[in-house]
Amino acid sequence: MSTTRRVGGPAETTDGTTQSAAVPTAPGQAMTIADIAVEAGVSVPTVSKVLNGRADVAATTRARVEEVIERHGYRRRRASSGAGSGLIELVFHELDSPWALQIIKGVESVAGGARIGVVLSELGGEHRPPQEWLDDVLARRPRGVIFVQSELDPAQHAQLASRSIPFVIVDTAGEQPAGVPVVGSQNWSGGLAATRHLLSLGHRRIGVVSGPRDVLCSRARVDGYRSALDEAGIAFDADLVRWGNFFVDGGYAHGRALLSREDRPTAIFAGADFQALGVIRAARELGLSIPEDVSIVGYDDLPVTEWVQPGLTTVKQPLQEMAATAARMLLEIAGGQKPANLRIDLATELVVRSSTTAPR
Amino acid sequence: MSTTRRVGGPAETTDGTTQSAAVPTAPGQAMTIADIAVEAGVSVPTVSKVLNGRADVAATTRARVEEVIERHGYRRRRASSGAGSGLIELVFHELDSPWALQIIKGVESVAGGARIGVVLSELGGEHRPPQEWLDDVLARRPRGVIFVQSELDPAQHAQLASRSIPFVIVDTAGEQPAGVPVVGSQNWSGGLAATRHLLSLGHRRIGVVSGPRDVLCSRARVDGYRSALDEAGIAFDADLVRWGNFFVDGGYAHGRALLSREDRPTAIFAGADFQALGVIRAARELGLSIPEDVSIVGYDDLPVTEWVQPGLTTVKQPLQEMAATAARMLLEIAGGQKPANLRIDLATELVVRSSTTAPR
Repeated sequence: MSTTRRVGGPAETTDGTTQSAAVPTAPGQAMTIADIAVEAGVSVPTVSKVLNGRADVAATTRARVEEVIERHGYRRRRASSGAGSGLIELVFHELDSPWALQIIKGVESVAGGARIGVVLSELGGEHRPPQEWLDDVLARRPRGVIFVQSELDPAQHAQLASRSIPFVIVDTAGEQPAGVPVVGSQNWSGGLAATRHLLSLGHRRIGVVSGPRDVLCSRARVDGYRSALDEAGIAFDADLVRWGNFFVDGGYAHGRALLSREDRPTAIFAGADFQALGVIRAARELGLSIPEDVSIVGYDDLPVTEWVQPGLTTVKQPLQEMAATAARMLLEIAGGQKPANLRIDLATELVVRSSTTAPR
Repeated sequence: MSTTRRVGGPAETTDGTTQSAAVPTAPGQAMTIADIAVEAGVSVPTVSKVLNGRADVAATTRARVEEVIERHGYRRRRASSGAGSGLIELVFHELDSPWALQIIKGVESVAGGARIGVVLSELGGEHRPPQEWLDDVLARRPRGVIFVQSELDPAQHAQLASRSIPFVIVDTAGEQPAGVPVVGSQNWSGGLAATRHLLSLGHRRIGVVSGPRDVLCSRARVDGYRSALDEAGIAFDADLVRWGNFFVDGGYAHGRALLSREDRPTAIFAGADFQALGVIRAARELGLSIPEDVSIVGYDDLPVTEWVQPGLTTVKQPLQEMAATAARMLLEIAGGQKPANLRIDLATELVVRSSTTAPR
């Protein structure tokens, strides 16, 4: 181990002779499980249990072992062709939308071709996985993990890193540290294209029913909307932008609020197709015709958009291709290669159907 | 091993002294991997490789080992808490419909609670998995397998059985041998309820756009339709029943054919919601109003049915609950329990929306 790694660590104070002592290794020399065991004052099987996410280790022991692992930047050798290494993990914060199916199909298309099993997990609406889920992943020793709108905290990140399990994030909710691979789509351009389309039809008062304000893609889309307004010389009116969730209920509530105003917008740009369905429902309840009284643009281009009446104008996210790209990137990293780019945003595309027209 | 199991097998002719000889074991005594190795004339690691679906065994060697395994009815001991045993496999012939997402959610709800990973596979439209897929499953040693509208041939069935990997079929396409657990829904009752609903509105000429004729659930639904006609004293007209696939294109083609007839039906019962969407498209193209000119009933109650115009009357299949039931049953069997029932059909339910009304 290098001395810089040891600065401030408890190993500094030991003399290397007792069981709990630091094991002096030459700089650059790989640390072994046996070294960790000696330094943490536990047996080799105990270190192995901790590395494999096993539950039968006392919490304090586990914390001590993890501390030694992290302090020395220990990296387990990658699993070879043994049990479990033919798996990748695909982790959703929720499976509730057909959106999820597009992602699954994209990952499956790459993994199936490589004869790698895809283990699917749902975090039940949480963006961060609980430790017990992570323990199960460590036990499975997958080739890697794909997180969809979910992510790790730094300690969890360190746990995967020390087991040499790489991960890739699809469509990140928040900002990620440098070095974390992320595959997304061009959200800012999508917001720009949707708004330019409405402006070109003659709309000047355009409302936004956005996703959550703390989700990066939402903010990028709204900024695209702002830029399009800027181009057209229209002042941004914060009252016309509502932040919510990506679901029908959020679209309905915010759509109803915007469309009930005396100075209601003549068009609404929604942050997701399901939000757009909620806006459509609200408009109908208020006796407004679509697109004559209000034009509506969705986001995602889910299969449902083709079947609603009128067909929904929307921004296509290449979800399957995003997922496939993430899977390929993950397998490259797991195979010891360095992908040329760790951050990729695939192109979005405006799909014009019948829910948009010129204002009355 | 029992002598009856050995009748006709090559072991009959050996004398028990050479490496390839049969190993005499007392009746009822469990055969070991070593016994199989001796009888097949291979090493113990080779038998182990075959059991684990490894590719690095010559095809002839493998066939010989499988033959010995099958002839003696060998059953590997179930994997305990070791690597891989925390997995179940979920196998689709295709992932193309939101139907699949309902199934995934149902399985995930049970498996997630039990901290068991779900490995998802798509067979690319095949109902029977290829051997290489099965080899990968054997290598993973899952607790069990859930097949969705897919199934095994007898040799594959024997391979899973000898590795003590149980399986359950959800919504079987074809008939299954006794002892194979199947979870489905009450398709015949669903066809009956849909047709009774149309009859009660006054329809007398009711077309059917069914799924494939060789898929059991399709035939059960059509038989429910026939029974409802019988109850109402209406003769069955085979010309009004079209067998196709479960997708939009099949619904469109058959819907167009039925609705182009001079004596066109006043109502159509479709075998799936997506088929119903195809029928709706065909009706619109022919200038027919729904439900005034033609009433349409779907099947499945997928989320999309709520969003089409008019809202689709359909038969709800409890897909999530079917999947959850299958997962619970699988874990019971894997845990050594005997489920009270190996064949369960959950109830279907008519959901009336706006796509059905009295004929003109």
